[in-house]
Amino acid sequence: MKGTLTMLLAVVLLVQFATAQAPATTIMGFSDEGSRTQEALEDKFDSYIQAKNLDDWMKYMSARPHHVGSPYDKKVVDFMAEKFRSWGFDVTIEKFDVLFPTPKLRLLEMIAPDRYKASLQEPPVAGDTSSSMLEEALPPYNCFSIDGDVTADLVFVNYGIPADYEELEKRGIDVKGKIVIAKYQGSWRGIKPKVAAEKGAIGCIIYSDPKDDGYYQGDVYPEGAFKNEYGVQRGAVMDLPLFPGDPLTPGYGATDDAKRLEIDESPALTKIPVLPISYHDAEPLLRALEGPVAPASWRGALPITYHIGPGPAKVHLKLEFNWERRPAYDVIAKLKGSTFPDEWVIRGNHHDAWVHGANDPISGMVTVMEEARAVGELAKTGWRPKRTIVYCGWGAEEPGLIGSTEWVETHAEELKQKAVAYINTDGTGRGFLFAGGSHTLEQFFDQITRDVKDPQKGVSVFERRNALSMVSGGGKMSHYKLSALGSGSDYSPFFQHLGVASFNMGFGGESSGGEYHTMYDSYEHYTRFKDPGFQYGAALVKVAGRTTLRLADAEVLPFEFNKFAGTLSTYIDEVTKLADQMRSQTEKENELIKDGYYDLAADPTETFVVPEAKDEVPYLNFAPLQNGLHHVMQQAKAYSTSKAVKMSQDKRETLNQLLKDIERALTRDEGLPRRPWFIHHIYAPGFYTGYGVKTLPGVREAIEQRDFKEAQEQIDILGKVLDGFAEKIRWATKIIGD
Amino acid sequence: MKGTLTMLLAVVLLVQFATAQAPATTIMGFSDEGSRTQEALEDKFDSYIQAKNLDDWMKYMSARPHHVGSPYDKKVVDFMAEKFRSWGFDVTIEKFDVLFPTPKLRLLEMIAPDRYKASLQEPPVAGDTSSSMLEEALPPYNCFSIDGDVTADLVFVNYGIPADYEELEKRGIDVKGKIVIAKYQGSWRGIKPKVAAEKGAIGCIIYSDPKDDGYYQGDVYPEGAFKNEYGVQRGAVMDLPLFPGDPLTPGYGATDDAKRLEIDESPALTKIPVLPISYHDAEPLLRALEGPVAPASWRGALPITYHIGPGPAKVHLKLEFNWERRPAYDVIAKLKGSTFPDEWVIRGNHHDAWVHGANDPISGMVTVMEEARAVGELAKTGWRPKRTIVYCGWGAEEPGLIGSTEWVETHAEELKQKAVAYINTDGTGRGFLFAGGSHTLEQFFDQITRDVKDPQKGVSVFERRNALSMVSGGGKMSHYKLSALGSGSDYSPFFQHLGVASFNMGFGGESSGGEYHTMYDSYEHYTRFKDPGFQYGAALVKVAGRTTLRLADAEVLPFEFNKFAGTLSTYIDEVTKLADQMRSQTEKENELIKDGYYDLAADPTETFVVPEAKDEVPYLNFAPLQNGLHHVMQQAKAYSTSKAVKMSQDKRETLNQLLKDIERALTRDEGLPRRPWFIHHIYAPGFYTGYGVKTLPGVREAIEQRDFKEAQEQIDILGKVLDGFAEKIRWATKIIGD
Repeated sequence: MKGTLTMLLAVVLLVQFATAQAPATTIMGFSDEGSRTQEALEDKFDSYIQAKNLDDWMKYMSARPHHVGSPYDKKVVDFMAEKFRSWGFDVTIEKFDVLFPTPKLRLLEMIAPDRYKASLQEPPVAGDTSSSMLEEALPPYNCFSIDGDVTADLVFVNYGIPADYEELEKRGIDVKGKIVIAKYQGSWRGIKPKVAAEKGAIGCIIYSDPKDDGYYQGDVYPEGAFKNEYGVQRGAVMDLPLFPGDPLTPGYGATDDAKRLEIDESPALTKIPVLPISYHDAEPLLRALEGPVAPASWRGALPITYHIGPGPAKVHLKLEFNWERRPAYDVIAKLKGSTFPDEWVIRGNHHDAWVHGANDPISGMVTVMEEARAVGELAKTGWRPKRTIVYCGWGAEEPGLIGSTEWVETHAEELKQKAVAYINTDGTGRGFLFAGGSHTLEQFFDQITRDVKDPQKGVSVFERRNALSMVSGGGKMSHYKLSALGSGSDYSPFFQHLGVASFNMGFGGESSGGEYHTMYDSYEHYTRFKDPGFQYGAALVKVAGRTTLRLADAEVLPFEFNKFAGTLSTYIDEVTKLADQMRSQTEKENELIKDGYYDLAADPTETFVVPEAKDEVPYLNFAPLQNGLHHVMQQAKAYSTSKAVKMSQDKRETLNQLLKDIERALTRDEGLPRRPWFIHHIYAPGFYTGYGVKTLPGVREAIEQRDFKEAQEQIDILGKVLDGFAEKIRWATKIIGD
Repeated sequence: MKGTLTMLLAVVLLVQFATAQAPATTIMGFSDEGSRTQEALEDKFDSYIQAKNLDDWMKYMSARPHHVGSPYDKKVVDFMAEKFRSWGFDVTIEKFDVLFPTPKLRLLEMIAPDRYKASLQEPPVAGDTSSSMLEEALPPYNCFSIDGDVTADLVFVNYGIPADYEELEKRGIDVKGKIVIAKYQGSWRGIKPKVAAEKGAIGCIIYSDPKDDGYYQGDVYPEGAFKNEYGVQRGAVMDLPLFPGDPLTPGYGATDDAKRLEIDESPALTKIPVLPISYHDAEPLLRALEGPVAPASWRGALPITYHIGPGPAKVHLKLEFNWERRPAYDVIAKLKGSTFPDEWVIRGNHHDAWVHGANDPISGMVTVMEEARAVGELAKTGWRPKRTIVYCGWGAEEPGLIGSTEWVETHAEELKQKAVAYINTDGTGRGFLFAGGSHTLEQFFDQITRDVKDPQKGVSVFERRNALSMVSGGGKMSHYKLSALGSGSDYSPFFQHLGVASFNMGFGGESSGGEYHTMYDSYEHYTRFKDPGFQYGAALVKVAGRTTLRLADAEVLPFEFNKFAGTLSTYIDEVTKLADQMRSQTEKENELIKDGYYDLAADPTETFVVPEAKDEVPYLNFAPLQNGLHHVMQQAKAYSTSKAVKMSQDKRETLNQLLKDIERALTRDEGLPRRPWFIHHIYAPGFYTGYGVKTLPGVREAIEQRDFKEAQEQIDILGKVLDGFAEKIRWATKIIGD
């Protein structure tokens, strides 16, 4: 298929070169004639896009802090609703009452060996008026930390992920009864207090080391884009890999009449108090630590020797929050489909911010708005999408994808009937197109990346992304490869809780900075360092807009299964190798332990606790996965979209009904072990990585956790899921062939 | 052979376990009976060794600064000479008059955008009286920098090696007419001004970044062992890979009547002025740089954003030196051989230091002395070595291996007749045995590493080294592997200029620090952080002492060629792969350039100069090396030391005469291209790495420099050298077989 397409494209390019005509290739899901119509529509769509709108709207929407429940958040919501209405959309604002704790008291002080009181403030900087709105802004905190008042010796735990605690154990260091200090990065932040609590720590401090997004990376704000010494990353720390959304209404909408858990009943809150701080505040604490020098990979860029402790630095952490419910507003703007009004293409971005959120989320939100405006312009010409297009501005994403999750949970049954796909954006910048999503739509998306031009270089965004791959040793890209989706933005409820095929996309790679979730993520910062002129914002409107429009107007929904099967095959290879490597690693490690090599190699002047030997890794029966894959591959080969577009309208409708739901064949209602909210069996956020994706999560995480009984169970389950998916593709082929 | 030995050892260990008897294996080069005698001798030798002597002598010898030409250096020399005499050795002090410039004026100041005058001083620290002897000590400088007075914009060049300048070129940065600032490490220091001058820079500053041996690595002196903010690494910057020794007498001894070059005629001096500074002095300069942010791998641990420049930091560097000749004293202590007085086993270490030099060189020098004292004790019992043992304390090693080189050059003809092997030490510490040397003696040395116990763990030093290899992923060591020798200590003239089989050895891995060539390499520092109690010093006496004693008493010189052939084979694989990888890399790179991928991937807001396409790499004819290796392997297999020890005395003498010179068969009088001083064709210091070894240097460096004509010539030459070496082994086997 690919070979043929490439050849076709080559021929087309030659023809183009000779005659400068429009491309003669077809768009996936469209007939030849439909493709020509669609191209003309997209040309018109492009002609409406104005970068200046992105600029104007960002300026307004990020002018003041607009976190969940703040007055300006409501202003932003009303502004957006008014805009969507003015462009011809049918707009509703849905309100959910969700738990949203805000700081009442934040105290962090070192009481030994020296005294230091953490400032916990981000002062205004020159040239950025946004940074002076301290009274309106939420100060730095981690949302869904519990209240607490703890005093204990401090231990530096690197990123605070499980592997770091293994290093501590080798050094004979236990965090039980201690307060840990962990660096941001290396995992989603919520993992740090979760693991720390599992290990017995009684408090958790998280700080941004200058090595990761401060002066080590580049000049700091306001001179440059990176985190200055006072910048603090706010952020949620609920147990997101368990379930996102309102902690009091797990799995159902936080509507007015919903039955709510008591706060202390919610399993999503942290078990220990946690507070984020700046590197200015972290330095005295880290400097006061003694004990072993931290391993080389743990050390940051502060001008100190990084020690682990415990102590003699002793800290007092006291946190109290206002445990209130606040309104989360979702703006829902619909343009009814002319032919299939009950098939929905959903396109969203959140609007709530930790502070001003010029980049996160406004830079993405304004691309949704400009897309909607241009679609509104198209509608004014008499065009209507075949399917209903739903534009969404989500509230309360920052504390835990709450606005989108509550909406999805509330409308779950309707969405299962109607949703064709969900297309998400969030903060976006300058550079290269990065996109993740369902691999059943990878080939569809690949076409789009070849149709939109990079604003700096004039080649397609695919070609530019391919150049990056070439120069960084990744080789020539046969096609645009979607990354797998974990968590961290509003696609999660659609994708992993409902099994709706989803995308998440944005530009980046030339707009790094340290502003994320700080006071300094401002319009001033964005327009100096992220996407000055909003040319990449405009390009994103073109990419996401085509995704929306093609899905809305496709004659046959452009799902394809060869690419999915290819990707699946690499995942299965990975988990097979994971078990094999773990087996040989365990054997080797156990030999080193048993034969005393660790002991012999260790420096006797330093504490070294030889780890305990681990259970050996059994050989697992991977045949169910291999057979499942084989079936998927067979059926994928047989299925043909180009044949499907030639069918009668009736048959196409039958096929589309099947295709619309086909991603859901990769889910099971029972969900994943210990987290039934997550039903997708190919993609999930990692239980111990947070945002970071785990593909084939049931199998992979069981192996990683050395639960080989569960691993075999999950292999058997996943094999059946794959067989069921193959069967669905067979039906699709059968419809075409009938 | 190895398998048999291992089995033998296993049997022996079992027997030992059962009966607690002495090992029944034979020592290489000894008959069964000779082995028993030698074991008894070594037991006695061990019994004489006293760690306290090392301590006492270090305390005395490092009590005051004792650089070349200083009063205390002469005291140290006389002290050593007196000791050797008192132990029964025939001692001479040989004096050479050698160029040794010392600082007259050192000025470094930043004149824009701010003013900063570098302190260029290492202040006394609490608890270390040595550090207060400022008036006697040489201040920080680089020896053999030319005088200069330059003012220019500054450019940060990372380690200042050729690859770093390629990065600069990609960013459109030229150092022509600029002053460069380079970090220590990444190459031998003399390479930095050499490359900078080749690129057109007019001055060079070298500093120690805290990432490499300062606070990033551990607590700084005096709290810990690492470099504090004021520590400066002194050191020579002559063009050592061209030739070491006195710059005015290249290739011949700096005797009183030697014809000397004029100072400005010497090719060994730097072409531009160069000065080492501390990170305290470097920080304001680096902080003032603008221009592109340095690549991630260039960044150090100072709390700044590392920029490259050029400027706006503008510096003024003014250096003047006292261009004087100073006396370099070599202490030569001989114990005449009873049977073969004209066969010399030479064991040396230098005695001159940059300041106090407790670690470098005294920690090694005192092990030579203790070895000599114990050998003297043995001699008092009536024993005499079969071959003459020569203990040497070299002067003027620090400025460029001068004392040893001048001695070797002066006595070259005699040494070619008499030298059997040279055994070198230099600074030594605590931990694992690290040894490099001629692979013709690898199997011989392997035995020794199994016969000496690690003082902390009680297993052999081999077993301990093996444990390190096991836990760091290097796998089980079949035998002790000698590293290849480059340069950096006094083995170089013996090994690479005369072709005398050589060793260099010491303990380390648990005694890192930042004291190297600073004011803080003191007795206090050593006894706190390096080898408290001198137990590893005593172990080194046992290892090096056995090396000396076994070579001195061997019935058949213990050269062996299978291990050499095995090592040679890996080197030949490396250069073959080097050419292949360079070919595919060049093809790939040229494609990226030609097809515009670099241009497409680059950020247009930053300067990026697409590199020029390189000439493609031709296929070289490696057959001469493969045939040479094949011949060496054939002959190595046929040769047998254990058969040789059973021959008549006459035949053994004939064989020994041949073996004594066999390493020289790996040399050519013409030497390496452009550096005839280096005649060994298997090992040399790298022309652009300095101390770092290049094996098969003629071939490897020609490929690296992309001179493929010369590479082919050098392959042909090396093939003949290997054939000649194989022929020598064949003769040896013939003698045995006759």
